[in-house]
Amino acid sequence: MKAPEAWYNVLADLDLDLPPDLPPPAYRDGARLDPQVPLSLIRQEMSRKRWIPIPAEVSERYARWRATPLRRATELEAALGTRARLYYKYEGDNPSGSHKLNTAIAQAYYYKAAGATRLAVATGAGQWGTAVATACRMFGLECVVYMVRTSLETKPHRRTIMEMLGATVIASPSDGTEAGRRFAAERSGTLSIALAEAMEATRRPGTRFCAGSGETYSLLHNTVMGLEAHDQLAEHEEHADIVVAGLGAGSNFAGLAFPFLRPGPRPTRCVSVEPAACPKLTRGRYAYDFTDSSEQNPLQKMYTLGSRFTPPSMHAGGLRYHATAKVVSALYDRGLVEAVAYQQREVFESAVLFARAEGVVPAPESAHAVHGAVVEAAKADRDGRSPAILFSLSGHGLFDMAAYRSYLDGQVDEDIDVTDEDIERSLAHLPAQPEPV
Amino acid sequence: MKAPEAWYNVLADLDLDLPPDLPPPAYRDGARLDPQVPLSLIRQEMSRKRWIPIPAEVSERYARWRATPLRRATELEAALGTRARLYYKYEGDNPSGSHKLNTAIAQAYYYKAAGATRLAVATGAGQWGTAVATACRMFGLECVVYMVRTSLETKPHRRTIMEMLGATVIASPSDGTEAGRRFAAERSGTLSIALAEAMEATRRPGTRFCAGSGETYSLLHNTVMGLEAHDQLAEHEEHADIVVAGLGAGSNFAGLAFPFLRPGPRPTRCVSVEPAACPKLTRGRYAYDFTDSSEQNPLQKMYTLGSRFTPPSMHAGGLRYHATAKVVSALYDRGLVEAVAYQQREVFESAVLFARAEGVVPAPESAHAVHGAVVEAAKADRDGRSPAILFSLSGHGLFDMAAYRSYLDGQVDEDIDVTDEDIERSLAHLPAQPEPV
Repeated sequence: MKAPEAWYNVLADLDLDLPPDLPPPAYRDGARLDPQVPLSLIRQEMSRKRWIPIPAEVSERYARWRATPLRRATELEAALGTRARLYYKYEGDNPSGSHKLNTAIAQAYYYKAAGATRLAVATGAGQWGTAVATACRMFGLECVVYMVRTSLETKPHRRTIMEMLGATVIASPSDGTEAGRRFAAERSGTLSIALAEAMEATRRPGTRFCAGSGETYSLLHNTVMGLEAHDQLAEHEEHADIVVAGLGAGSNFAGLAFPFLRPGPRPTRCVSVEPAACPKLTRGRYAYDFTDSSEQNPLQKMYTLGSRFTPPSMHAGGLRYHATAKVVSALYDRGLVEAVAYQQREVFESAVLFARAEGVVPAPESAHAVHGAVVEAAKADRDGRSPAILFSLSGHGLFDMAAYRSYLDGQVDEDIDVTDEDIERSLAHLPAQPEPV
Repeated sequence: MKAPEAWYNVLADLDLDLPPDLPPPAYRDGARLDPQVPLSLIRQEMSRKRWIPIPAEVSERYARWRATPLRRATELEAALGTRARLYYKYEGDNPSGSHKLNTAIAQAYYYKAAGATRLAVATGAGQWGTAVATACRMFGLECVVYMVRTSLETKPHRRTIMEMLGATVIASPSDGTEAGRRFAAERSGTLSIALAEAMEATRRPGTRFCAGSGETYSLLHNTVMGLEAHDQLAEHEEHADIVVAGLGAGSNFAGLAFPFLRPGPRPTRCVSVEPAACPKLTRGRYAYDFTDSSEQNPLQKMYTLGSRFTPPSMHAGGLRYHATAKVVSALYDRGLVEAVAYQQREVFESAVLFARAEGVVPAPESAHAVHGAVVEAAKADRDGRSPAILFSLSGHGLFDMAAYRSYLDGQVDEDIDVTDEDIERSLAHLPAQPEPV
């Protein structure tokens, strides 16, 4: 299979006007946003071109572990007794252990080209921090990681690996930033607070903030997954009838699914799987919202639970973000992609079934896709269909053994309940919405 | 690169009479050994044929992750400022996380073909147990793992992953076997005791004991590593001047190095690296010894520290075995391979240097090879040479974060001292040696 030479921009193939970003209320009086993001990335963010060439410096680093494997889960099929054909795209076999390295490398390249010497990032479960730490090493940049405290405490090894890679790791909320001190009461932290802290870190010269998942360019950089998978399936003389991927802020789902939305003879259903504990697509509102707790950044129109929503503690820390990417949101709003939400109990059950069958331990985030595929296979069997189902194994779970230990010990047996009241309470704090045009 | 269709038997190319195994003292009076090992494996153990065909059932499982990557460590070279060219063969990207799956799959296949329904194994650091648990799942066998207690306590996640794969994990010494009860006082355990326990487990019908490393057939099965690496280097138009690999009981070192001992136009130096805390080649004796504490198995002539040698506690649990494979020992005795021993302090230093440069975390066992390669590169630079150095990255260190944590926290800064008296005291218990012929 030939390596993709360009990223795929789904907006080129869709008749879709994205609602524009709006300045945050704090800046309505004429204050200016700092130019944080390099022009190269802004151009990608705004582009309607179908193909964005991958720079050689990025390609050559991708080539160290890409193309990633596409494997047929024959043992899982046998364990399920399904007639569906299950394929998974495995992104765990790279230095950082997840798909997030795809955009981390691209961003480190562009930020360095724009003069940055140090990148500041926020991380939930730690995958993004590990990815940026890895990418920073590749390009000779310093790296500071604000990690949600509750994740850091349950996954101390994530700190160790980031420090081994040369990064500085700080538990969020910290007392080193104004944003951290403001939310000191929420000791366990959220990704939203960590984001605000990392952005504040850019006050130091040479430091730039590097966003992990929701930006259109992060989605774009991850399309190498779907492009490869599409061609790998073709080598199996297969077409994906259904693509299933876990949904956090969106880069994993979009990276795998978007290339399957290209016009073609047979349609592909693209199913995003979110945790019942943080159900932004299935239970959130399509509205303008803050992307983080600092409330300093442009408002984006997205499916959101409100930037003040604090999801219940759960093992898939990477899926706790309150909203999802504006492009994914727009596609969902138009009915072009689907969404389901599952409880972590059932997600773990499928993850262990998968690990036993295939010998690979999924990250709890990735396990959502496993469960989604298992459910789709069962549905197909009931309906007498035998589709090819492609799902995303976006990262390994080798740092999540404590989570699996609790599951094996029967401590993940209760459903997490998010009430309508919880959601309404958070949505009440949405910023004022613009008048309809 | 074409996948190897056969394993390579180094004995075919060497004029080397291996000293024969001898019955253990307990059986001198005519008692019979149980036929534990299937005839298929015994044949491989005794064979002098150069090539042993890999069965299709094994090949097709290898194909799920082999060929493993051969990567040039360009960033490490830059960090060292060396003119040597450093290549590493990476075996960590498979379901079990180390090279040990190469023989685990082959053995599970042969044991199942011989009628086994359950495999019992002993494991030090946990890699062997994880590998056999993975292989047992592939072939529908049950699996029971006796794990050295001190490793189990420092690496609880190893238990979790083995249990996820469906294995039963027991801390050794346990109170479920006679051997375990006999050595109950040595609470922290040794691989030797765990071996004795796993062998005893075979009293249950259908259960066979499955040895991980020192047997000639385990060495053989691992030669896929060296065969692939040889051809991968040829694709780079390279020849390995030096091959470096960590040495425990021998399968990793032999698997990578032996294919480079094939007759050819240019010689390859094969350097094994052992921990200073368990220096069987560099400070042991070439003598007949027990392979485990049960003293029930045939005596083998090997470099040994004595089966009662208890190495000081250290992080590379997989290298704590008291002896090394009889084939490796015979080659070393004849000067055909080399050996060095290093302190874990310096090994960790090179491991962190490697991780920062290459973005891959080595298992502490594999880190011995990293350090060995770093030392060889420095020597070559001093001598004005620029060799191609191939080293074995036999497994990932993602379950060894606690060890790296201690290193980063400055707790691995003292040398481990094994005195001549320690070694002499242990060697005093060697069984009576046969008269010279």
